[in-house]
Amino acid sequence: MTRHPAASHGAAVLAHEPDGFSLLVAGKRVLRHAADAPCLFVGRGEERMEMYRGNFDIEDYVVERVALRHASMTGETVELAAGPGEAPRLRLRLEGGALRFEALDPCVNRLWLRVPAEPDEHVWGGGEQMSYLDLRGRRFPLWTSEPGVGRDKTSEITFRADVAGRAGGDYYHTNYPQPTFLSSRRYALHVETDAYSVFDFRHPDFHEIEVWAVPERIELFEAADFLGLVETLSARFGRQPPLPDWVMGGAIVGLKDGARSFERLGAIREAGAKVSGLWCEDWVGLRHTSFGARLFWDWRADETRYPGLRQRIAELSEEGTRFLGYVNPYLCVDGSLYPEAEAAGYLARDGRGATALVDFGEFDCGVVDFTNPAAADWFAEAVIGRNMLDYGLSGWMADFGEYLPIDVHLASGVDAKLMHNPWPVLWAEVNARAVRSRGRTGDALFFMRAGFTGVQAHCPLLWGGDQSVDFSRHDGLVTAICGALSSGLLGNAYHHSDIGGYTSLFGNVRTPELLMRWAEMAAFTPVMRTHEGNRPAENLQIDGDPEVLAHFARMTRIYAHLAPYLRTLRDEAAARGLPVQRALFLHFPDDARTFAIQDSYLFGPDLLVAPVWQAGESVRRAYLPQGVDWVHVWTGRLHPGGAEACVEAPFGRPAVFFRADTAQRELFEGLPGAGGV
Amino acid sequence: MTRHPAASHGAAVLAHEPDGFSLLVAGKRVLRHAADAPCLFVGRGEERMEMYRGNFDIEDYVVERVALRHASMTGETVELAAGPGEAPRLRLRLEGGALRFEALDPCVNRLWLRVPAEPDEHVWGGGEQMSYLDLRGRRFPLWTSEPGVGRDKTSEITFRADVAGRAGGDYYHTNYPQPTFLSSRRYALHVETDAYSVFDFRHPDFHEIEVWAVPERIELFEAADFLGLVETLSARFGRQPPLPDWVMGGAIVGLKDGARSFERLGAIREAGAKVSGLWCEDWVGLRHTSFGARLFWDWRADETRYPGLRQRIAELSEEGTRFLGYVNPYLCVDGSLYPEAEAAGYLARDGRGATALVDFGEFDCGVVDFTNPAAADWFAEAVIGRNMLDYGLSGWMADFGEYLPIDVHLASGVDAKLMHNPWPVLWAEVNARAVRSRGRTGDALFFMRAGFTGVQAHCPLLWGGDQSVDFSRHDGLVTAICGALSSGLLGNAYHHSDIGGYTSLFGNVRTPELLMRWAEMAAFTPVMRTHEGNRPAENLQIDGDPEVLAHFARMTRIYAHLAPYLRTLRDEAAARGLPVQRALFLHFPDDARTFAIQDSYLFGPDLLVAPVWQAGESVRRAYLPQGVDWVHVWTGRLHPGGAEACVEAPFGRPAVFFRADTAQRELFEGLPGAGGV
Repeated sequence: MTRHPAASHGAAVLAHEPDGFSLLVAGKRVLRHAADAPCLFVGRGEERMEMYRGNFDIEDYVVERVALRHASMTGETVELAAGPGEAPRLRLRLEGGALRFEALDPCVNRLWLRVPAEPDEHVWGGGEQMSYLDLRGRRFPLWTSEPGVGRDKTSEITFRADVAGRAGGDYYHTNYPQPTFLSSRRYALHVETDAYSVFDFRHPDFHEIEVWAVPERIELFEAADFLGLVETLSARFGRQPPLPDWVMGGAIVGLKDGARSFERLGAIREAGAKVSGLWCEDWVGLRHTSFGARLFWDWRADETRYPGLRQRIAELSEEGTRFLGYVNPYLCVDGSLYPEAEAAGYLARDGRGATALVDFGEFDCGVVDFTNPAAADWFAEAVIGRNMLDYGLSGWMADFGEYLPIDVHLASGVDAKLMHNPWPVLWAEVNARAVRSRGRTGDALFFMRAGFTGVQAHCPLLWGGDQSVDFSRHDGLVTAICGALSSGLLGNAYHHSDIGGYTSLFGNVRTPELLMRWAEMAAFTPVMRTHEGNRPAENLQIDGDPEVLAHFARMTRIYAHLAPYLRTLRDEAAARGLPVQRALFLHFPDDARTFAIQDSYLFGPDLLVAPVWQAGESVRRAYLPQGVDWVHVWTGRLHPGGAEACVEAPFGRPAVFFRADTAQRELFEGLPGAGGV
Repeated sequence: MTRHPAASHGAAVLAHEPDGFSLLVAGKRVLRHAADAPCLFVGRGEERMEMYRGNFDIEDYVVERVALRHASMTGETVELAAGPGEAPRLRLRLEGGALRFEALDPCVNRLWLRVPAEPDEHVWGGGEQMSYLDLRGRRFPLWTSEPGVGRDKTSEITFRADVAGRAGGDYYHTNYPQPTFLSSRRYALHVETDAYSVFDFRHPDFHEIEVWAVPERIELFEAADFLGLVETLSARFGRQPPLPDWVMGGAIVGLKDGARSFERLGAIREAGAKVSGLWCEDWVGLRHTSFGARLFWDWRADETRYPGLRQRIAELSEEGTRFLGYVNPYLCVDGSLYPEAEAAGYLARDGRGATALVDFGEFDCGVVDFTNPAAADWFAEAVIGRNMLDYGLSGWMADFGEYLPIDVHLASGVDAKLMHNPWPVLWAEVNARAVRSRGRTGDALFFMRAGFTGVQAHCPLLWGGDQSVDFSRHDGLVTAICGALSSGLLGNAYHHSDIGGYTSLFGNVRTPELLMRWAEMAAFTPVMRTHEGNRPAENLQIDGDPEVLAHFARMTRIYAHLAPYLRTLRDEAAARGLPVQRALFLHFPDDARTFAIQDSYLFGPDLLVAPVWQAGESVRRAYLPQGVDWVHVWTGRLHPGGAEACVEAPFGRPAVFFRADTAQRELFEGLPGAGGV
């Protein structure tokens, strides 16, 4: 078969074939079309989408799905029709390394693209995936939503959450989906679309991309190795602001105990913990519902709950400790900001033109309409700027983003179904703009769980969402690793999680073991932060048990000890977009045994971290990549690469190894507790 | 718009329309095709089907689904293509009142047909449906399988059964599906196909029929009223053999207690119960597994468990009581029949040509290949004929039928996926042939849970499968009513269920209330039969409590008292194919309030039965159809039709009414316990 290169943009070449065409990226065939094996299908679907507090029930009725068998090529443009002599329904144009799509049939609202697959190929990405790093063999709908409780239809917790509120979720549910994947064939593919999409990696011979629209573009990226691919993707989606230096001084301690939070912080410090920040999400005050205490969603300090807060923040700052708060894109109807926003027309509307109200469980909220530039400006300036940054906050959880109801009417006129996925990016942008307006980019730190294509440019730190307070496979500690690694591949350098998890339901509560194991892992992530969880009184807190507190304090010292190393990783992130937590294969692209590992990771290039993520374990087995030797941090014992190591991992000694050839040996050998056998 | 009648067969007329065609049945439009609203789609799917002990996990990947917009009509033939000038892919021909289909494109393996729907239309049928009588608003895959345990994804039992063995099921799972529906527009539609199919009644404007093949025919039936439709369908699918007279003498008592069964029967009789038969499924002996005692699947009497059984059967017969047993289409490898069948080549084979073995939990079985005429003959003659009928049995549970593994190789060469649905019919035919060979049609009574199109002609009695031993909405007592009514509409005149239900799992056990309420209902069905259930020792039996036994005995007398009436219903079934248990609308076609009622039924034309089907209820509300008055059997009080009646329904007095204008008044007024206020 002969190929005639027709057009080349960057690395991409559209090649005529006798029976169709191919798209080659650096010689790799990423599309192959022939009349008897078409790579494109278009059609029409009628979706049913129902939302229950951020959980979606989505189903598609595909009315038509037509193979576009007939391709006619002119230069770098391809027109596709169902058959010869039929009206073309789709036009593709290779432009700047991307395939631009144009619908020629206005009835088309579904597109399916098949990408050739190899039998032993691995694929990664899809945003922040919590269950599977290697996506091969499964189907991943990409739609920002609540991730679910338990996320495993065979678990009792998921069953109960499903029955109680359709909230159980499944393996693919995530706050941060992104239609981008990397292949072990060393290319990456991104679908530029705001629509609902699905990556289906179940087929042996092809990957199928489904988009509930004709996408704007399919972008292709190629590099000699995976690090190069990540750099390229980071450049494409936007470089994150640098991690603030102050964060590296110790843990951010999350307490929501009103004024008592300050006292408890003192005691935690006295126990020897290094603390960089105090995070009080209840800085806005509480609302009491039958579900228990909830935050009061009106974004300004509640000086009843925190008397003299402004002054206390200033005092804390003098001690070198920052204060962080909480915000989300909703305004409760009984707050002070709601009437202001409503009067100005800043809130999304319902089908009758009235302010759309969202029920959050015994209280209703308006949705700030970020497609209205004036509303976004107001939220950035008046709410985050004035009420938060000017008040003294150095950071906050920028919660939600994945809940945009699909039936609201927005100022931009764009269908809310098409704004749902990019909404987290608008939300990140509002936060980033506020930070920038005060000149505090790289200093003020907000963290988000929701995301979509482009969130990288705005959000300085992801957090892994609301894990259950357990060791479960699909919603426990180990999922925070998967979230860090998958999102890291798409240019999200910084990730962290709630130490001890968040969601405590149906009698599931934190054990001391869980809290300690999670703190151990967090010491080897960019940010170490605690959270009291959704039911603080029923769950163990880091200051609730002397042994747990002592362990936590020690892990904060380990975290702080690594600051010089973390600074090099921050610089690497700024320069190249590489994540702090890295899938093993990023540095060992030729070691296929690393391709599906998702329960251990590289912390920068030199440390390999294998957290204990199952209950009752005190010995950890972990594969060490080939080509270098690895030194077990706590014993100094050398382990060869290319084999599994098996080490004792009692509390306080998570399985951590450094490369024998590291330039940071002195730092690592100086870790508290490290040393000879 | 003008219509030009082009062809008419019976009631069906194919009419040219300026932009397509219509199919009219007695003036009712049942198909409407236009280029911009096509009624036919064809395409290609790749199914994934996995079986776990009769439970299926089925998913379809639809590669193509193409609207056939262009129709060209010649006389009574229509050829359909995707567009003008394109090759036709499907040919339809109106012939004998049916649309015959012919695929012109060999790649097509999926077909979707849209039938116009009206907003307030109701639809019924789909085989023996256990959850919903009115199918409107839901989607019904039609594939014979285990019905599931709990059959409700929000129930704890279904969750546990799913986790334990993917056995929880859902609302549409049934042992007996059939691609036939009746519409309140007073027509019926049948799809003649053996393939997997789906009836989708969720759309407001059309019903969609999906077939995983090009079906042979779509058959249409029309009548002035619903009784006429049922008569027509019964004529089409085959008239059932009549219900034996001996059955009407009392209950068939199911005991599986070895020789002790006879003693227990004596005690049950002494308590005043009318008994027509003793059913011992353990007549073949037991196998002890870690799950408990199972039957020994080698179809001949086990005279160790039942010493002198042949003689005891004869003695029983002299007392006027029949003996019934059990059989299914499998042979256990350690039995006497397996080597005989294997040597003769009567067993289905696997992909390597060896005998296919099916694991039933600690024992393996061969599958008798009924597509091999010699195997079917052998099973009918040597197994059922000689070992069962000649031995003295007057009936049996002909269990299973819905389990044909989809990967076995059959003598006929037909794909097991296409034999899976009709397998129950082959199984019924083998049983019916054996009965006929001994001249005992209408006397020997076998009962089946599995079915498919055509089972009506062979199987004299359906049983509603393995309900859970509870009052649950989707797997309890009430589902036996739905099963009777839905299957009855398709010409299955006789239906019954296990008194007290069968499946006791996860600590769910029979209560006295359940057993009594079920016996009450069973007295007003064609056959009253008990079952000890899957865990006899852990569950209450009819002879396990004096109050329960006295109640049961009384209900058997009520059943036996109704024999003269039941005989008229048997005659009606033989003459017209009408079911004994009837949906209310069959006799009240103009009373739309009856269209969705599935928790009460007509027992013949004159009795309305509203069983208590929820725990803790002693008052029953029931809608009484319009146009006649109704007499409450126990009090003699008159209730007007067209309104709800509310009556006391203590144990022993289920809510039963007779038509005030009945010719059977004397019989009904003579029911034990009936009388004035």
